[in-house]
Parts: sequence; C-alpha cells; structure tokens
Amino acid sequence: MPAVTSRRVILKSRPLGAPRPSDFDLVQAPVPAPKSGEILCRTIYLSLDPYMRGRISGVKSYAKGVDPGELMVGGTVSEVMESRHPDFKAGDLVQGYDGWQTHAVSSGAGVRRLDPAQAPISTALGVLGMPGMTAYVGLLDIGRPKAGETVVVSAASGAVGSVVGQIAKLKGCRAVGIAGARDKCDYVVEALGFDACVNYKTEALVPALSAACPDGIDVYFENVGGEVTEAVVQLLNPFSRIPLCGLISMYNATGPAPGPSWRALLTNRALVKGFIVSDHLDRMPAFLADCTTWVREGRVKFREDIVDGLEQAPTAFIGLLEGKNFGKMLVRVARERV
Amino acid sequence: MPAVTSRRVILKSRPLGAPRPSDFDLVQAPVPAPKSGEILCRTIYLSLDPYMRGRISGVKSYAKGVDPGELMVGGTVSEVMESRHPDFKAGDLVQGYDGWQTHAVSSGAGVRRLDPAQAPISTALGVLGMPGMTAYVGLLDIGRPKAGETVVVSAASGAVGSVVGQIAKLKGCRAVGIAGARDKCDYVVEALGFDACVNYKTEALVPALSAACPDGIDVYFENVGGEVTEAVVQLLNPFSRIPLCGLISMYNATGPAPGPSWRALLTNRALVKGFIVSDHLDRMPAFLADCTTWVREGRVKFREDIVDGLEQAPTAFIGLLEGKNFGKMLVRVARERV
Repeated sequence: MPAVTSRRVILKSRPLGAPRPSDFDLVQAPVPAPKSGEILCRTIYLSLDPYMRGRISGVKSYAKGVDPGELMVGGTVSEVMESRHPDFKAGDLVQGYDGWQTHAVSSGAGVRRLDPAQAPISTALGVLGMPGMTAYVGLLDIGRPKAGETVVVSAASGAVGSVVGQIAKLKGCRAVGIAGARDKCDYVVEALGFDACVNYKTEALVPALSAACPDGIDVYFENVGGEVTEAVVQLLNPFSRIPLCGLISMYNATGPAPGPSWRALLTNRALVKGFIVSDHLDRMPAFLADCTTWVREGRVKFREDIVDGLEQAPTAFIGLLEGKNFGKMLVRVARERV
Repeated sequence: MPAVTSRRVILKSRPLGAPRPSDFDLVQAPVPAPKSGEILCRTIYLSLDPYMRGRISGVKSYAKGVDPGELMVGGTVSEVMESRHPDFKAGDLVQGYDGWQTHAVSSGAGVRRLDPAQAPISTALGVLGMPGMTAYVGLLDIGRPKAGETVVVSAASGAVGSVVGQIAKLKGCRAVGIAGARDKCDYVVEALGFDACVNYKTEALVPALSAACPDGIDVYFENVGGEVTEAVVQLLNPFSRIPLCGLISMYNATGPAPGPSWRALLTNRALVKGFIVSDHLDRMPAFLADCTTWVREGRVKFREDIVDGLEQAPTAFIGLLEGKNFGKMLVRVARERV
C-alpha cells in the first residue's frame, strides 16, 4: 500500500473573541503506516460542535485543549482502509475521534463499529452520537421530566436541542423551543412536533416565553446562556431543574459574563447542574437502544447541515458559533463509497 | 383568668432597600381567650432570621408575605399559660411560630413540646431548631460532603453557618468559613474548630480563599451571594456542590443582582440547588437525634446574640441584615420563669 498523505486543519493562532478563518491552517502531513494493533482510516464525516471553541481558548477546562500548531480535534465517521487490529477489518465503517483530517492512524481505543443498515452512518455524529446522548442524559437524568410538565430548550433546532424537545414529547411533556430564526422555529414545531418555539431575535423574550409556557417552566435545558437564560429564570416553577449543557452565547466572549440572579433559584428551590456527556458513558447502551428505536420508528427526527470538503471546516465552525447552521453541522470530508 | 393584652410588632410600611425602625410599629392588641382545641402562650424568645426580609418585601415567594398592618411572623419559644388542647398543659415549654408578640393563641399545629433537661430552650430556635436543621439538610443532603473534601461556608459565625462548618468537621472535611469581622473569624476557628476563616471585609477574597483551600472547594454552602460567591466559583473543583440556602447580601437590594457566570458551573459539572428547610420536615427526627447528641457531647457548639425586650426587635432585625449580630439572633421577650 502506498504511503498516505493526510490533509489536516491545524490551529494557527488562538482566537480572541470570534475565530477567523486565518486562525486555522490547512496543511499536509504524511500518515504513518499502521503498526500492529492499529488501524488506518479515511475520514468520511467530521463533526463540528460548539465545545470545540473551549478547546482552542487556552482556558483550563475539563479536557486537554488544542495548542497552536496542533491538529483540531473532533468526532469522525470513517472507513477502515487497513487494519492491524483484531477487532476491525478493511471496509469497516467506524465512529472515532480522528479530528479535522482526511486520514488517521489510531489504536482503535474509543472507536465504535457502525452498522449502516441500522441508520445512516452520519447519525453516529448526531442524533445517535454524542449530541443525541447529551440530550438523553441531560434531559432524563438531570432534568427528570414528568408527564405534563413544561420543558424549554434553547438552540432548539440544533443537534442537541432538537433531540431534547422530541424526547420531552415522548415523555408526555409540553416542549417549547427557543431558536434564532423563523425557519428554525417553524421546523421544530412543524417537523419535530414541539408545542411552541420562541424566536429570541425577533420576539420579546419574557412575554413570548410566558405565552408559550402558560404553566411556567419545569425543566430548562440550557445550551446558550445570556439573555435567554435571564428570561427563563423569571418563569421557573418551584422545584424546576436546569441541566446546564452549554453556553454558546458566551463562547466567543473574552471574559466571563455574569449569570442570572440566584434569587429565583433560591425561592423556587431550583437545581442547576453542569454536565459533560463523557462523564456518563455508562448510559451509552441505554441511549443507543432507546434512540435507535425512536429514530427507526420516526419518533425522533433529525436534520443535518452538511458542507463539502475539509477546507470548509473553519468557515462552517465559525458559522456554527454564530448560529448559522440549521441542524447538526457536519463536514463531508470524502464520499461514503469510493 | 383576666383578659390578656399582647404587645405586638406590626409591619407599618414596606421597606425600600434597608428596613428602618419606622417601618415597624409596636401596638397593643387583646388576645382572645383560647377556645376548645387552642392554647394561650406567652412568648419567651423570638427568633430573628434573614428570611424575614423576604416576607416583608411584597415579592411573591415560597411563603405568604406580611402586608403592612399585619403582625411580623417568626419562630418563638413560649410557655403555655392556658390549654384547651389535649396535647398541652399549662407550664409546658413549646416551640411555635407565634410571631413578634408577647402573647398568642394558637391551634397547636406545628407546635413542638420542649424538654429543658435536654438543652437550653432557646436552642430550639437555633442550633436545635430551624437554623440547625437548615445546616444539616443543606450540607448533608445537597452538599453530600465526603471525608477529605473542602467545605466552605459563608456567614460562618451565624446560626446556620456555624453548624455547617462543625458538621463538616464531624464528617472529616476541611471546613473554611467566610465572615465579616475579625472576632467572628477568630471564633469559628478557635471555638468551633474550623480549619480557617476568611474576613471578606478586609482580605482580598480570591487569594485569601485560595490559600485557605489549597485543594480547591468541593462544597460551598451559600448564605450570602454577591462578591463572595464570585470568588468561590473561581475555586470550585470538578463535581462540586452548592447548597443555595440564602443570599443575605441581596435581601435589601431593590432589584435582582446578577449571579456568577455559569461557565465555572459547566466546566466543573457543578451543582447548585436552592432549598428551603420547610420542604424537608421528614428529616426532622434524624436531625434532632444527631444534633441533640452532638450538642450534648460538646461536638457542636453554639453562640447566641440576645437582646432584651420585644421593642428591640426591629433594630435587632435591621442589624442582623447588616451582619451586626454575632451568633444566633434572639429577642428575649420575657423571662423563662415568672
């Protein structure tokens, strides 16, 4: 087999505020031949996710960051080109964490084989992957919604939010989304079955949310922070729960913005709980069993926003942080079948 | 028995900002003779607590407020003067909720008989009463401290905070207080056995707390809000817990102040949980069993700040909100034995 060269996107400089295309660089690098116990993969889909903004910030967090000069990290769906690992063979489709590159050699640790007969392989990065599991764990284990309660989710048309609202409906709740565009709001109500959706860019948040949540808010699945959160906490019910999943409105900020007053949390005996899906990998089997069924039965729908070509990744990522995507953001790095 | 006249403190006007003595009025009112099923009590101790600021604010909260012209509410220790209730007899010492008055007739609901041989009866309003139980429930059920962890508590010399730190020590934790005076800091370290105490009025909070908590903060028992909280969240450990008990620094504010950024809560997967002790009355037997033992064995100490005379209640309450008290704030309304 000839030597493989990978095209890779590296972090060139740490962004201050919103990242720019010039903060990234597309380079070529030789890929070593797989050694015993390793696999060589070609990337088909690369997942772009808001958490990546934290990884390039240089701020200490729960995971190691990406330093300038290093490969951008990210989840991938790939085809095994060559395997020297007993669990994989050439032609296998796998979900891994190979980052922003066309080819990679890995040890196979954390790599999951995919069955394309079960669901489109791209879903392993979205509704049946980390974003879907984030929704599942955050809503069910922290939000603990009860039938008849009202569940509000921000970034409602996104990879996580769209699943949160649909699971809330499956559990007998009223599901109310918050999104930043008319077509996104229409989508979550008409295609996904949410009961209502508030456009935070055009509507006055407190009255609009209040109208959408006549019985108050029992669970708020937090993806955004900022003004949306300020409005939500004014409508919390006693004993409400807030799974704190993300704060995308703040990711480009150069310093920490204040949060909402804790007074409403106190008087309502509310719970706020930050969580990271990778702390909950024990829930993976239950998530995959439930969510694969729901997707197959059409009870959980999904939408993907796919750009073609690895060189598009920086621009697509920058747009994701601005809410320009509509559905799970993916880069198609190569065709599924060559 | 002759007709009884009660001296009573009523709310005269809603304070805007810090309450003033002129917001209260001392009036006389006849007390009806107890009917069948009722008891007539004379108040010995009246408890003053920060939550009362919320009750007179006119803001909707978890409990009915006090309107102008109404009696100020509050916990009391009293002697039964006349009983037409099968569970009580004249001479019984009881803990009830008779408010800011010298005499009251009640149905006996929520009234608890006290055994003066077990502990001084005033403790039924402090270390062995609602404040002690608030510490117990918030720390053990929400904070869930593990031996070796660091527990920080604000308002550390107060009725709740002093018990929080002492229980933390009993559970094998490092206990660090935050208080607003040198003598209070000395007290919690020297008399109560905390490992350290930071004076938030004279020390730079982040470096002082950082020095006092070399292994970071695992549990923060929140009584105050504001700058103290801003400093604490910078030092949170992964999976830290924040029982949110009170926000005394904000109680006199005319609008809600922002809270800390949620970013530290997210990256540390922290938990914030507001709670009100009255939601946890099922824990009363366990609390009384444990804490009575700890007090009797001298493992939990307490300090009371007692003023004499019901007419002192408004001034003492105003001082409490400013942190002028040192220990559990009580008004001695009458002598224990007449």
